Amino acid sequence: MNEKDYFRNMTDRERAIFEGGISMGALFHQFVGTPVSVSTISSLERAIEESILLQPAVVDVTVKFDECLIKEQSSVMGYTSLTGEMMNIKITTKINEKIITTCISYDEDLQYPIMYIEEQ
Amino acid sequence: MNEKDYFRNMTDRERAIFEGGISMGALFHQFVGTPVSVSTISSLERAIEESILLQPAVVDVTVKFDECLIKEQSSVMGYTSLTGEMMNIKITTKINEKIITTCISYDEDLQYPIMYIEEQ
Amino acid sequence: MNEKDYFRNMTDRERAIFEGGISMGALFHQFVGTPVSVSTISSLERAIEESILLQPAVVDVTVKFDECLIKEQSSVMGYTSLTGEMMNIKITTKINEKIITTCISYDEDLQYPIMYIEEQ
Amino acid sequence: MNEKDYFRNMTDRERAIFEGGISMGALFHQFVGTPVSVSTISSLERAIEESILLQPAVVDVTVKFDECLIKEQSSVMGYTSLTGEMMNIKITTKINEKIITTCISYDEDLQYPIMYIEEQ
Repeated sequence: MNEKDYFRNMTDRERAIFEGGISMGALFHQFVGTPVSVSTISSLERAIEESILLQPAVVDVTVKFDECLIKEQSSVMGYTSLTGEMMNIKITTKINEKIITTCISYDEDLQYPIMYIEEQ
Repeated sequence: MNEKDYFRNMTDRERAIFEGGISMGALFHQFVGTPVSVSTISSLERAIEESILLQPAVVDVTVKFDECLIKEQSSVMGYTSLTGEMMNIKITTKINEKIITTCISYDEDLQYPIMYIEEQ
Repeated sequence: MNEKDYFRNMTDRERAIFEGGISMGALFHQFVGTPVSVSTISSLERAIEESILLQPAVVDVTVKFDECLIKEQSSVMGYTSLTGEMMNIKITTKINEKIITTCISYDEDLQYPIMYIEEQ
Repeated sequence: MNEKDYFRNMTDRERAIFEGGISMGALFHQFVGTPVSVSTISSLERAIEESILLQPAVVDVTVKFDECLIKEQSSVMGYTSLTGEMMNIKITTKINEKIITTCISYDEDLQYPIMYIEEQ
């Protein structure tokens, strides 16, 4: 089956939303737990951006970890494990003319790293 | 901010699709690499189903790994690592009256474990 | 090369320690991030035990997650992500007559989930 | 408890071996499944090296993925998922004067990515 045949039952906007959701779920669960310190934030952010850019329909990725939280949570060992609380991420997906940005950010009230979309 | 306020810019169907995508991306990247053999397939399938059922909007999960492939790829060590090729999974998400099933199955032609949706 | 030839430069005790370390590192980084709630603790513990038992030299695994912490950290969404802080795990490895137990537990002073060995 | 008190029952060599095992198990299970293509190998290798260097006792890490295999296994989507088969990695750990190098490489006969140590 041709790749496109799988998506005949979705509009372009729906598929952009679907692929954004997949890539955000993928990013979160692939990289949570990675050892990280203030000095390695930048190489990890770049590697994750490049990796997620490979996924279907993804045209832009911005990964920004919370440096203060990483500093604060670093143990006497000098580092900590990456958590959802540290993540500020935007993934832009595009299907034909439809463009969607999927975001994750930590909501203090919900105590939860929430994923949602922004229009372009 | 209230949880619902994050999703004012999506229809119920779009959000069901979004949450299905998130949960499928999450499942894939959380569990790929897990040591598995023919005799542990069943406990792993059940634990994954229970875990993914916790995610927002998910109302049903069916995880079925390819027993033949797991047998065939088990090394002399008696087990192998879980890969996308082994996965047959359906995740059903529901937002109000809208219900979507998100699937992953391996497409031999594409050499790719493809994620797509089915209508209910 | 035969499997045993890889380990000619280690004593039985050293290899039991090595395999214990591998399996504990594997367990931690494979499963950190998994969605978990009080009601799914038990199926997740069993699946992880069965999975890690497949690894070389492992003869026993006991996984016990901190129920209070999981309850406490569960968000309004009803669940949380598995962290190292929640883990109390023992993995027993055996090479010929040498038996070692590798442990992980959270040290409040160090703010760190520390891995160490116990004699049998 | 002081960190050092946890390790009174191990020689320096044993602890170097233990920490090497932990870090190799960690690396494998943290990063297996990461989307990778020929063009992203290098940033992923660097980020993994920097991340694993944070772990206790680790003084050097060399990550080299199999470019041919990544090219060959890339689907029509232009990328693949990182597997153990692609990994050539050396992690050097040091406790006082004792230095150990932990390696992973794929053994074709065993069909298994085997972890072992090299003396320094």
